[in-house]
Amino acid sequence: MKLATLRVDNSTVAARKDGDTYTVIEGYDNLNQLLANADWKTIAQQAADAQIAEDAADLAPVVPSPSKVLCVGLNYAGHILEMGRELPEYPTVFPKFADTLTGPKDPVGAVEEDPDLDWEAELAIVIGKTAYKVAEEDAEEYIAGYTLANDISMRGWQARTIEWTQGKIWAKSTPVGPYMVTPDELDFDTAILRTTLNGNVMQEHQINDLVFKPAKLIEYLSTMLPLRPGDLILTGTPGGVGKGRTPALYMKAGDHVEVSLDGLGKISTDIVTPAEAPAVL
Amino acid sequence: MKLATLRVDNSTVAARKDGDTYTVIEGYDNLNQLLANADWKTIAQQAADAQIAEDAADLAPVVPSPSKVLCVGLNYAGHILEMGRELPEYPTVFPKFADTLTGPKDPVGAVEEDPDLDWEAELAIVIGKTAYKVAEEDAEEYIAGYTLANDISMRGWQARTIEWTQGKIWAKSTPVGPYMVTPDELDFDTAILRTTLNGNVMQEHQINDLVFKPAKLIEYLSTMLPLRPGDLILTGTPGGVGKGRTPALYMKAGDHVEVSLDGLGKISTDIVTPAEAPAVL
Repeated sequence: MKLATLRVDNSTVAARKDGDTYTVIEGYDNLNQLLANADWKTIAQQAADAQIAEDAADLAPVVPSPSKVLCVGLNYAGHILEMGRELPEYPTVFPKFADTLTGPKDPVGAVEEDPDLDWEAELAIVIGKTAYKVAEEDAEEYIAGYTLANDISMRGWQARTIEWTQGKIWAKSTPVGPYMVTPDELDFDTAILRTTLNGNVMQEHQINDLVFKPAKLIEYLSTMLPLRPGDLILTGTPGGVGKGRTPALYMKAGDHVEVSLDGLGKISTDIVTPAEAPAVL
Repeated sequence: MKLATLRVDNSTVAARKDGDTYTVIEGYDNLNQLLANADWKTIAQQAADAQIAEDAADLAPVVPSPSKVLCVGLNYAGHILEMGRELPEYPTVFPKFADTLTGPKDPVGAVEEDPDLDWEAELAIVIGKTAYKVAEEDAEEYIAGYTLANDISMRGWQARTIEWTQGKIWAKSTPVGPYMVTPDELDFDTAILRTTLNGNVMQEHQINDLVFKPAKLIEYLSTMLPLRPGDLILTGTPGGVGKGRTPALYMKAGDHVEVSLDGLGKISTDIVTPAEAPAVL
């Protein structure tokens, strides 16, 4: 099953995707609200309300109001080893906030304050029920599904101090979507994560190369604090980011960046000037 | 004016403090909800509803549901210079989440996973209206008031990777309160921030030694993303933390830690065993 959040008039609705049609799930403003209902799966399956064609669907961030977004860095074994580093003992954790997210077709503004705008394709976990101190072997039942994120990073600000946060939290800089798929629709062992910039492949890697896999991340993060329904975990990006190239390659207004994963669809982002960027307030 | 969030029955209410009495502000579940109303100051001033004596008041985190909590490290000049470091060009930013906060009289559990439990007294800013790309000279009008936080840190987990996040986000580990005072009640140039552990002074420092002061922090952080009413900024801690001592001194169950600032009252925390800690879920 595929679920999403659509913009309709001046509000949003939760919706189920079947083929190229979205069906509105009446009574739920977004996927966060739906997942907060323990019966979300049945409610979503039974919805038979208004339909919206995929072409006409205005997609919001798949979960627009997570109480927390936890992100993991340095999590693809191949990339870590090729950089001459040892595999990490612990995940490296950094944050985003709901205000940082944007829709999977929305343009993202190049910011005036930092020209070093980079891409990071990521598999993201959507939490399905409150998880606190959950063991790895029990973690699957807390996963509502998976989606994609492009962790667009402001590398200049990220490198200003030893903490990455300030390169990672800019308003409407992280597209999330296009929809969430339930775990049965993701073939974790074969799916390939890809980034293209202006049609050229920049990242292309199997997600089963993750050092800390989804169940392990839920165990680790839920040791510290409760993960709530609709919260997001971004699992990290493989090699091939712009900062890692020689010379470094950054995005600028006029570029088009896409992130895709087999079974999970595609995030499609025009990079635009600050003046052309969607309003933040 | 002093404002707070009180626990009443199984819910919470916003309240105004006058002397040793809290007056309930009818219709607002907490200070976040109240601050989301542009007329919050008038509403709070005019409230004349049920009264609760200070001794009987069960204080929640002063803002229990911020959309974001942004924290600044390495921000007291005296401590930075005495450590032989240069003053930083930029603030060092790290996160907390609403689930990390706890009330100003609540016990905090020593966690099983990390014995290196440290204190950090901090002045915190409560945002009063949405601030995005606000200049330093205009920042004062976005400050609803000030409160205190004890940024209790799990130093072992904090040092596991280069990112501090995982030492800073544990459930119900950061007491915030006891109340928010409006800016007119804080004498920024003379107020002294103090921590005592079992009655012994551990930190004692003037807050006007902050490198990045509140207005500058609002300018800097709001460059990246909007600060919303009820959001929190923790401004950093001066010297005297447990990790900085020789030998290092950490807190354990049975300890009592207090954080105070002239004009802002006191956070008073019993450190308890994991079994005695308040339930997280």
